[in-house]
Amino acid sequence: MTDNPSPFAQRGSTEQVEDGRALAPKFDADGLVTCVATDARSGDVLMVAHMNAEALARTIATGEAWYFSRSRKALWRKGETSGHAQRIVEMRIDCDQDAVWIKVEQAGAGACHTGRRSCFYRAVPLGKEGAVTLEFRDGEKLFDPKDVYRK
Amino acid sequence: MTDNPSPFAQRGSTEQVEDGRALAPKFDADGLVTCVATDARSGDVLMVAHMNAEALARTIATGEAWYFSRSRKALWRKGETSGHAQRIVEMRIDCDQDAVWIKVEQAGAGACHTGRRSCFYRAVPLGKEGAVTLEFRDGEKLFDPKDVYRK
Repeated sequence: MTDNPSPFAQRGSTEQVEDGRALAPKFDADGLVTCVATDARSGDVLMVAHMNAEALARTIATGEAWYFSRSRKALWRKGETSGHAQRIVEMRIDCDQDAVWIKVEQAGAGACHTGRRSCFYRAVPLGKEGAVTLEFRDGEKLFDPKDVYRK
Repeated sequence: MTDNPSPFAQRGSTEQVEDGRALAPKFDADGLVTCVATDARSGDVLMVAHMNAEALARTIATGEAWYFSRSRKALWRKGETSGHAQRIVEMRIDCDQDAVWIKVEQAGAGACHTGRRSCFYRAVPLGKEGAVTLEFRDGEKLFDPKDVYRK
């Protein structure tokens, strides 16, 4: 795979980036784009993560989600440890090409390393100032991370 | 508003951050968290942007989306120029508290500065290696940015 030419074009003018058909991602200073994964059935946001050029190229080539871990500084295929892979139904890129949206079929019980379906299991109440108390929503643990992630 | 105490707690242990009820955002080196805005009706991702502490606090206090522009290095209320404000129906925060998800009622024709409903109006075809040709989806321009954004 790494012997193949890059799937990415050079960044052109704003018009080329926003209204063109060439994939010319804007990687940030750390070489990353943001990726939002939503559940293809429910539409819920499952997770937000990052892709470097290699993760993005592998995701496009394979139709499975690959990410780059900022904390571990490592490429990873979603599900490689947990089995909870993400098969991509549709992939989109945004206007300035620094964020991608993938609609996925989530294998296994969930996307979140804490054992939940989604990483977004707490709501932030609105309309108040001062300290905030989060409210759990859809926060049921569907699997035990200790069973799923080998240490 | 700025005279009020911060709505944010100090970062605690991993367990406190992931399983607690205190809002303790993890701002990155630039002082930002990632925000995903989805359409409360369709579930589509409208945009991905960033919030600094003040944008996040104002969003929580007002129930309207405030962002921080990395390019302009400025706080902005979504719609302050275009009129295309975002009223938040629900706000969530993710496991490690470095990303927020807002479900919004999008005022006006769209969220994207290019005139589209969503910033994600191009699909990335999957399963091929080498150069990628993007495919426009839902890419109809619903408003003319020149009419909406004063220079």
